[in-house]
Amino acid sequence: MSTSVSETPTPVQGPEQAPVQTYVRELGQRARAAAVAMARSSTAARNQALHAIALALDQRRAELMTANAADLAAASGLDEAMRDRLRLTPARIEAMREGLIEVAALADPVGEILHLRRRPSGIEVGQMRVPLGVVGIIYESRPNVTVDAAALCIKSANAALLRGGSESLRSNQAIAACVRAGLEAAGLPQDAVQVLATPERAAVSALLAMPEYVDVIVPRGGRGLIERVSAEAKMPVIKHLDGICHVYIDDRADLDKAEAIAINAKCHRYGVCNAMETLLVAEGVAAAVLARLVPAYLARGVELRGCARTRALAAGITCAAIDADWATEYLAPILSIRVVADLDEAMLHIRRFGSAHTDAIVTEDLTRARRFLTEVDSSSVMVNASTRFADGFEYGLGAEIGISTDKFHARGPVGLEGLTSCKYVVFGDGHVRQ
Amino acid sequence: MSTSVSETPTPVQGPEQAPVQTYVRELGQRARAAAVAMARSSTAARNQALHAIALALDQRRAELMTANAADLAAASGLDEAMRDRLRLTPARIEAMREGLIEVAALADPVGEILHLRRRPSGIEVGQMRVPLGVVGIIYESRPNVTVDAAALCIKSANAALLRGGSESLRSNQAIAACVRAGLEAAGLPQDAVQVLATPERAAVSALLAMPEYVDVIVPRGGRGLIERVSAEAKMPVIKHLDGICHVYIDDRADLDKAEAIAINAKCHRYGVCNAMETLLVAEGVAAAVLARLVPAYLARGVELRGCARTRALAAGITCAAIDADWATEYLAPILSIRVVADLDEAMLHIRRFGSAHTDAIVTEDLTRARRFLTEVDSSSVMVNASTRFADGFEYGLGAEIGISTDKFHARGPVGLEGLTSCKYVVFGDGHVRQ
Repeated sequence: MSTSVSETPTPVQGPEQAPVQTYVRELGQRARAAAVAMARSSTAARNQALHAIALALDQRRAELMTANAADLAAASGLDEAMRDRLRLTPARIEAMREGLIEVAALADPVGEILHLRRRPSGIEVGQMRVPLGVVGIIYESRPNVTVDAAALCIKSANAALLRGGSESLRSNQAIAACVRAGLEAAGLPQDAVQVLATPERAAVSALLAMPEYVDVIVPRGGRGLIERVSAEAKMPVIKHLDGICHVYIDDRADLDKAEAIAINAKCHRYGVCNAMETLLVAEGVAAAVLARLVPAYLARGVELRGCARTRALAAGITCAAIDADWATEYLAPILSIRVVADLDEAMLHIRRFGSAHTDAIVTEDLTRARRFLTEVDSSSVMVNASTRFADGFEYGLGAEIGISTDKFHARGPVGLEGLTSCKYVVFGDGHVRQ
Repeated sequence: MSTSVSETPTPVQGPEQAPVQTYVRELGQRARAAAVAMARSSTAARNQALHAIALALDQRRAELMTANAADLAAASGLDEAMRDRLRLTPARIEAMREGLIEVAALADPVGEILHLRRRPSGIEVGQMRVPLGVVGIIYESRPNVTVDAAALCIKSANAALLRGGSESLRSNQAIAACVRAGLEAAGLPQDAVQVLATPERAAVSALLAMPEYVDVIVPRGGRGLIERVSAEAKMPVIKHLDGICHVYIDDRADLDKAEAIAINAKCHRYGVCNAMETLLVAEGVAAAVLARLVPAYLARGVELRGCARTRALAAGITCAAIDADWATEYLAPILSIRVVADLDEAMLHIRRFGSAHTDAIVTEDLTRARRFLTEVDSSSVMVNASTRFADGFEYGLGAEIGISTDKFHARGPVGLEGLTSCKYVVFGDGHVRQ
């Protein structure tokens, strides 16, 4: 008789393991098994699940609001900004529903076969886009991220392990029940999306310590969270550190375009990673540019910090920019300004102080535009456009799991394709290697 | 006057650092500076450098042989297989030269702009393929890898930090002199390829500890080296662990094709990662398949280890395969054979014991072939072809820096594109975000 093949995982837990580690490992084992089913699921079933989750959110509004009210009551110590992010409202539940339906409408990233070609040996070789497997997402107390992350992982045929901030535990569990219901309605495994049901911080460490069950980690939140996750994770991390974005106004710039872009890049929204933090101006146009921009910024309430030359040219700037300014992501109505000799000095500044997120040049000179595009080593480089365009929706990715400032795997805005990999597929007809 | 922007790196070394760390960090700083120049170098200059290195190897054969003789004399304690890999011969120098000229003839992977499209906002968005930056390669005492690795990094416009096994130090320094001469002849920075000139093992730890200077590490060697590098590296690693490759012969297989593929996959070469280590046979055809294959393997001197059912069907197999066999990369004329009920049990076995390298199905059934391709989560999955095809040259990549069994960034044979990333480029005409 045939020996049977069992998929039961080998026991891995020593008696000294804390219960939270045991719990997280069990979730990991379930996620790995669910990932196998997700990888072979149909596009239709995954889209059906997204619609069914949207329906469940609609039907269970009362439970969601009750759970959220309990979270808010328990989190009375939080500041108002954090309480606002934690809060669910009918409008926010509606936005979550709409997000699910929009993701369902996107093209399936999985199954595409790229670059199929016949080789001299006679075999045909291509690359098939497949899910990564199990995606771990760690985020702060924002319940809408739970729905968003679940949607992107389901759409891309991955299994997900979600860990939101502990203040949102009840809200996230209520959302998780909707997600499970939707997966079940579509005939997909309920373990395809699991939301950690423990407030213990040790659960995060446990999650980061099991590369056998988690293929990639996506931290979404502030710098502290991302640095902790990056230092601790035993698996690859799609991470987004600072967005210290520059606009360089060249001395061959069209000054109308320069003014529009410099104002938009700084003032369209202040607290976002693709806002400009430092303006670099070529000395040849510095007087003219600053004469236009300084009053415009001051009229908008932007605090300006300048290098010595900037301050000499623009009487309105009294605050000196120091090295710490060039290296700071303000995320606020503050802008540092530097006058540079030319393109080379601008690129040197960006290399030294930039964060490889998004940088733009304003110029009418084609050669300089080409050099900037080639030589500036950032995840997005732009010519005559506002840095604010660095965004998954603006780029046409349809959805965004984050913006990667790493060079590996995914760079810049990460959409559904960032949650996939390409494996080689080979078709033969009995071919052997000579 | 303008404050000047200096690229001088901030001093980073405390007085307590050991000299080897100081030395490796200095190489890292130089590599980072050279990477900037490489990123803007022309295709022509990089190809010229490769040809000039080939010429230098030709002109300095005597120095290479002298240095290699000294390495061999000092390495008298090594076993003959390792001495053989360390040895340079006129034929091997010629092969190194030819390799350089072949890489020069490949298409430049850098600068291509993919998926350029106009968005509703009016901006045009594409992805430009650019070098990763600084590539660290750690390998054993095989001087030919020094040339090979240098060629791939120069071609892909990266800077390289190379660390070969300590027994090959003199040979590698002689090769490094040729590489520097070739870079100089092409007007490229000599620091674009630096070969660590110290036998100290601490140099490897120092290399792995500086993510600010090294963007990716490629370990090339045995499992011990790769595990050490993966555990220690603070930057991404392109790694290749075991190649436990399977061929599954389905009960709808063409048995002539099955026989040819099963023999080729095991016997074409034994010590390679894409050789079959386990043969899975559907019970419906097991008797017929084993009647053909067992004598063929035994005639080639292959030791066979079988599950109980295999042994019951094939009298020639006396050795029982245990779980450890299914999980072993033999790299030798040994094959484990298992009879399975069907495709599902075969895929279960591969999931449990495989290493996600390369797996093949032999079948005439289209639905089963599609399921195998979709559901087996390996870097290469094949239908009716020998696993031996999993190779950068066979796939048409032109060159191969390694085979990745990870899912992240690069998967399967890694060619020049694996040493690049894609950054977003945006073209506007004064566009701002609404």
